[in-house]
Amino acid sequence: MASNRFPIMEIFGPTIQGEGMVIGQKTMFVRTAGCDYSCSWCDSAFTWDGTGKQDIRMLMASEIFQELSRIGGESFSHVTLSGGNPALLPQLNELIDLLHENGIAVALETQGSLWRDWFLQIDELTLSPKPPSSGMQTDWDILDELVSRLSDHNRCFCLKVVVFDDADIRFAEEVHRRYPEVSMFLQAGNNDIMETDSTVLLKRLMKCYEWLVQSVMASTVLRSVRVLPQLHTWLWGNKRGV
Amino acid sequence: MASNRFPIMEIFGPTIQGEGMVIGQKTMFVRTAGCDYSCSWCDSAFTWDGTGKQDIRMLMASEIFQELSRIGGESFSHVTLSGGNPALLPQLNELIDLLHENGIAVALETQGSLWRDWFLQIDELTLSPKPPSSGMQTDWDILDELVSRLSDHNRCFCLKVVVFDDADIRFAEEVHRRYPEVSMFLQAGNNDIMETDSTVLLKRLMKCYEWLVQSVMASTVLRSVRVLPQLHTWLWGNKRGV
Ligand code: SF4
Ligand code: SF4
Repeated sequence: MASNRFPIMEIFGPTIQGEGMVIGQKTMFVRTAGCDYSCSWCDSAFTWDGTGKQDIRMLMASEIFQELSRIGGESFSHVTLSGGNPALLPQLNELIDLLHENGIAVALETQGSLWRDWFLQIDELTLSPKPPSSGMQTDWDILDELVSRLSDHNRCFCLKVVVFDDADIRFAEEVHRRYPEVSMFLQAGNNDIMETDSTVLLKRLMKCYEWLVQSVMASTVLRSVRVLPQLHTWLWGNKRGV
Repeated sequence: MASNRFPIMEIFGPTIQGEGMVIGQKTMFVRTAGCDYSCSWCDSAFTWDGTGKQDIRMLMASEIFQELSRIGGESFSHVTLSGGNPALLPQLNELIDLLHENGIAVALETQGSLWRDWFLQIDELTLSPKPPSSGMQTDWDILDELVSRLSDHNRCFCLKVVVFDDADIRFAEEVHRRYPEVSMFLQAGNNDIMETDSTVLLKRLMKCYEWLVQSVMASTVLRSVRVLPQLHTWLWGNKRGV
């Protein structure tokens, strides 16, 4: 019986997915708590650093689905599972199954630090290994295994690297060289997650994105890749829950 | 022998694709001259209204490829064919074949007013029927035929509707209802293609995009669609050739 409970931080939407392989997608978000990483520039540190502890609710798949339906009504058929790292939850397939039974597509992003069999059920899976600026180390053996399992099963997945500086671009090149057949996204980092003045923030974000575009245009390694901003931060700044 | 000549307006890049199904893609652009439509808000009217006549060059596929290689060097493996309406050119397969022989993927956008057998060779094809605000009429029989041929051949294609107002949203809903299985993109229109002040333009474009996002979020017809801006106009305004 599907009666496991999951640590849920936020449920919101419908809104657009602001980044990555389905940028612009109308979706609901379910954000799980907890992460096995602690990236220096994490924009959802409240999911793992204790500051959002009071907001965590332990919910069953059926309760999560009820809340999605209550908030989103009849207006959605796509849900994005976000974190933290949702891959920490071994039984998350209970939620994925329930969503699929109700005709809802499911997207998920994880840094790729561990494998779950239910990855094979995700409709759009993003593996987002973290570059040097994050302070984290990628375990290439594990990432190799994830990529080859997903490829063997012909799954719809991509690689995404958030980029802050030149060293991060070199890392993205390394990822792309290692997995040349996998769709590759580069995303401009948000280097000021505390800025509350949206005009100041927008200017800064656009500069970072333009720098990334120029860097990628000049690269002969990153020949067929996609370069994207975080559209939601351009629109709504550092606000949560939009 | 591949010796047909094509009316070419612009060849430029590498830059990012600013819109649609491969938004953010690093690509070169080849813009053909001529269109069978005359949309009221066309942002590339210079390709068909006579104002760009002096820039049109009649080039063979091999000459186009030479120019792409000269400008783009080793840094690209993706080309976007744009117009005008490139579907007006019956022998464009000569260019597509040559690009494919050189390991280059090819994307193309057309309003869907006529069929070409070479559509089946396009790696990412966008059909962009025009909404009421354009002043154009969609021939649904032709569009039906295009969609069913592309679907029958399992091609990678999508529908995209540019939206300026509520009537355009109703049109987008009609398109989505008619072809529920096809990936659907809504794009915020640029209602000021003459504005040269980039800050003024950006504010206006962001407002239009936010309005479109809100409208789509409220729709129970447009449940699983993608809503995007024109990223290149946000970055570079109404400039040509970037
Ligand atoms: S992996 Fe993601 S959620 Fe975890 S610390 Fe890094 S950025 Fe934050
Ligand atoms: S179909 Fe496209 S190129 Fe032709 S007039 Fe309309 S917007 Fe312009």
